[in-house]
Amino acid sequence: MAVTSDASAPPDPVVAELLAALPADRVLLDPDVMATYQHDEAEWAEFGRAAAVVRPRSTEEVAAVVAACARHARPLVPRGAGTGLSGGANAVDGCVVLSTERMREIVEINAAERLAVVQPGVVNDDLRAAVAEHGLWYPPDPASSLWSTVGGNVATNAGGLCCVKYGVTRDYVLALELVTAAGEVVRVGRRTAKGVAGYDLAGLMVGSEGTLGVITEVTVKLRPLRTSPRRTVVGFFDTLAAAGDAVSRVTARGVQPAAFELIDRVCLHAVNAWKHAGLPETAAALLLAQTDLPDPAGQQEAEAIHAEFVAAGASDAMLSTDEVEADALFEARRLAYPAMEQLGGAILTEDVCLPRGELAEMLARIEQIAARHDTPIATVAHAGDGNLHPMLLTRHGDEAGKARAQAAFEDILDAALELGGTVTGEHGVGLLKLSGMRRELGPEVVAMQRAIKAALDPQGILNPGKVVG
Amino acid sequence: MAVTSDASAPPDPVVAELLAALPADRVLLDPDVMATYQHDEAEWAEFGRAAAVVRPRSTEEVAAVVAACARHARPLVPRGAGTGLSGGANAVDGCVVLSTERMREIVEINAAERLAVVQPGVVNDDLRAAVAEHGLWYPPDPASSLWSTVGGNVATNAGGLCCVKYGVTRDYVLALELVTAAGEVVRVGRRTAKGVAGYDLAGLMVGSEGTLGVITEVTVKLRPLRTSPRRTVVGFFDTLAAAGDAVSRVTARGVQPAAFELIDRVCLHAVNAWKHAGLPETAAALLLAQTDLPDPAGQQEAEAIHAEFVAAGASDAMLSTDEVEADALFEARRLAYPAMEQLGGAILTEDVCLPRGELAEMLARIEQIAARHDTPIATVAHAGDGNLHPMLLTRHGDEAGKARAQAAFEDILDAALELGGTVTGEHGVGLLKLSGMRRELGPEVVAMQRAIKAALDPQGILNPGKVVG
Repeated sequence: MAVTSDASAPPDPVVAELLAALPADRVLLDPDVMATYQHDEAEWAEFGRAAAVVRPRSTEEVAAVVAACARHARPLVPRGAGTGLSGGANAVDGCVVLSTERMREIVEINAAERLAVVQPGVVNDDLRAAVAEHGLWYPPDPASSLWSTVGGNVATNAGGLCCVKYGVTRDYVLALELVTAAGEVVRVGRRTAKGVAGYDLAGLMVGSEGTLGVITEVTVKLRPLRTSPRRTVVGFFDTLAAAGDAVSRVTARGVQPAAFELIDRVCLHAVNAWKHAGLPETAAALLLAQTDLPDPAGQQEAEAIHAEFVAAGASDAMLSTDEVEADALFEARRLAYPAMEQLGGAILTEDVCLPRGELAEMLARIEQIAARHDTPIATVAHAGDGNLHPMLLTRHGDEAGKARAQAAFEDILDAALELGGTVTGEHGVGLLKLSGMRRELGPEVVAMQRAIKAALDPQGILNPGKVVG
Repeated sequence: MAVTSDASAPPDPVVAELLAALPADRVLLDPDVMATYQHDEAEWAEFGRAAAVVRPRSTEEVAAVVAACARHARPLVPRGAGTGLSGGANAVDGCVVLSTERMREIVEINAAERLAVVQPGVVNDDLRAAVAEHGLWYPPDPASSLWSTVGGNVATNAGGLCCVKYGVTRDYVLALELVTAAGEVVRVGRRTAKGVAGYDLAGLMVGSEGTLGVITEVTVKLRPLRTSPRRTVVGFFDTLAAAGDAVSRVTARGVQPAAFELIDRVCLHAVNAWKHAGLPETAAALLLAQTDLPDPAGQQEAEAIHAEFVAAGASDAMLSTDEVEADALFEARRLAYPAMEQLGGAILTEDVCLPRGELAEMLARIEQIAARHDTPIATVAHAGDGNLHPMLLTRHGDEAGKARAQAAFEDILDAALELGGTVTGEHGVGLLKLSGMRRELGPEVVAMQRAIKAALDPQGILNPGKVVG
């Protein structure tokens, strides 16, 4: 495939169409600039060289890009901020990468209907801040919320800290405007609280990683802003198994924390080393639970969680009413991944989700897998969801270590499947989980997935190779 | 198409296969018996004569039925309890009707994972009662919950009273076992709190009315049983517009009632006439709101709702702490439809869902439509969702009245679409909303729907003519 910046090559007909159809500043052709758009943050996921990167500003411009690709059966790879960890936004050779970064308009915030309409490039935290001014709350809060976009969140069905109580992105998407593989602009979903007119196409698009259509507008449901004081319960555990047991106990008691996170010792150390956070590094793991019910129910919930932490054998457990202290602990959770990156080396990030009762067993198996493959593994988790993010650590350039980490990665997927879990809780299939997804779903269900892909994208131009392979 | 009970007709090859493959008591061939399985409760929705009705007891038996139909390209119409109001379970000539009424096993109730696994024929109320013994709660509660089945609820994405705060059936379906159009048994979805391995096929199946697969097992998410005392706020309004205004005010204030219903004067009268309930019939409409937060927050919410009822001009408004009294009012709401039936005549039931802010305007337009078409219309509503169920009343045998009611029915759909609503909030497309669905979605989205149908059911044997026409 010719790269158009190479003067000796024949002109690329798709690029020529893009240049003719769009204002000049929408199309990037410089290979060095394009390089930053050709992959997400998934370690070792393959990516190719794009023919062009386009940054449209409107639905019409997106439609023109898709139509050009459709006419030439050219791969189109949509991307948000590129914070994904599965390779879902990675370029294939000769493709057009479509970045939504310039589609940042908040089109509508409607307090009466409790909804907002945004372009896909609006950053998650920016949406939350904007609706807060209207007394409203957009719950989905992936750890990448400072950078990741609503469009990317929808394409991957992003989770986050709040979803243990408030659900994932899917639970907040009311309607989508999208450009189909044929270049048509359509609207799916609704603005009403309920609706069952036809198959749930909006739901089908959520988590489809740009393989079924390009999202150009998102209508999200909002909640009233929370006003109750948050209470944080902190527990320190000498073993990961004890921490897992604490999670099961809290769940079985019927308590619903608004966030329920786990950070292991390696991650605490990394955050301390980077941010001088002064976090305790003596315990094997720290559990952080937060309640948001109005008092006295909130206080009662916090006390119940505390009691279960103690019953599970916490070496220390405390209720924090100091919001600054609590925020620092949750900030440490959010910073775990970049902090690990600061330590140097390459990080392969897992995303398995287990039945909650299997959490302790899964944590034990991860330790065994780390030992078996001589691969250091640090773990953070949305513990209350059973969603673990073990991070497999290697040194740059250590090819043998990379091979061991990749073997450990697949072993973790197999262990999760054996315990009734899934290979991806919230990061998506992308490229890194293709094999695991096939093991999880089996050939008949994979065939159903591919039939749907073929039905909505007969030429296979939309983000080829992702989700369904 | 030959009916096999007709001795002079050649034997039906599908029926012969069914009789060979299944125990004898699974297959019904008596036309009088079959007649009760050939339609749901949708007034005036067409239905045909089935070749056989089968009542399998296991997934394997369902697979055998689908395989027989697939071999002969014979239509298969699955049904739950037949309480639907859109014709989604109506037979077509020569089809095999598959009733799930004998698949009533509750397979698993898992308190640790907060989930239950059930066969599709389990009755909604029976599931709720069974999980309550484990301290758990299954929220979706269509007014038909005493009779309707979980499988039917999933197939139609049933709503109910609780969904204003707790969501619809879709929000509780974790996984499904189904038999595909090819007769294969597959599992879609997951048992974990989160998961994004491949397209959301479980979500796609919810609300697809048996047109994409036959559901043989349902895994549902549960919540902890509510323990706080419920507080009910009752408001009487002299005009429907004032009641609509009260709903908007409560929503805008950020209060989230756990149920928020409207009953108009005609329905109150019908319930009184049937059950001697002693409900007041002086107001144009009654609003019923219930809170379930722990006190004092529950009390504060109830007082806020009361204040908004008064501000919207309620002729009377009160907080009820008497659970017996409150239950009687909600029972009246649930009984509205059968009570109207007791009055005699045929009832065409609507199911439009509006943006909440358009509720008052829509109620006004319904009054205009009733006058224009000389058709009495009684209304109950899940007011907090903007989901209205106007009931169009006619006398049996009054053909002119039937034609007027049908015209009014379509006018209500058009009015809902004009105000940004949907033609079906929770009853489904079935047959009665096919035309409205097309007007709502437009040709491009209808084409996407049909492409998915063709991808998963290439022969078009599964419940032909429903949802996508």
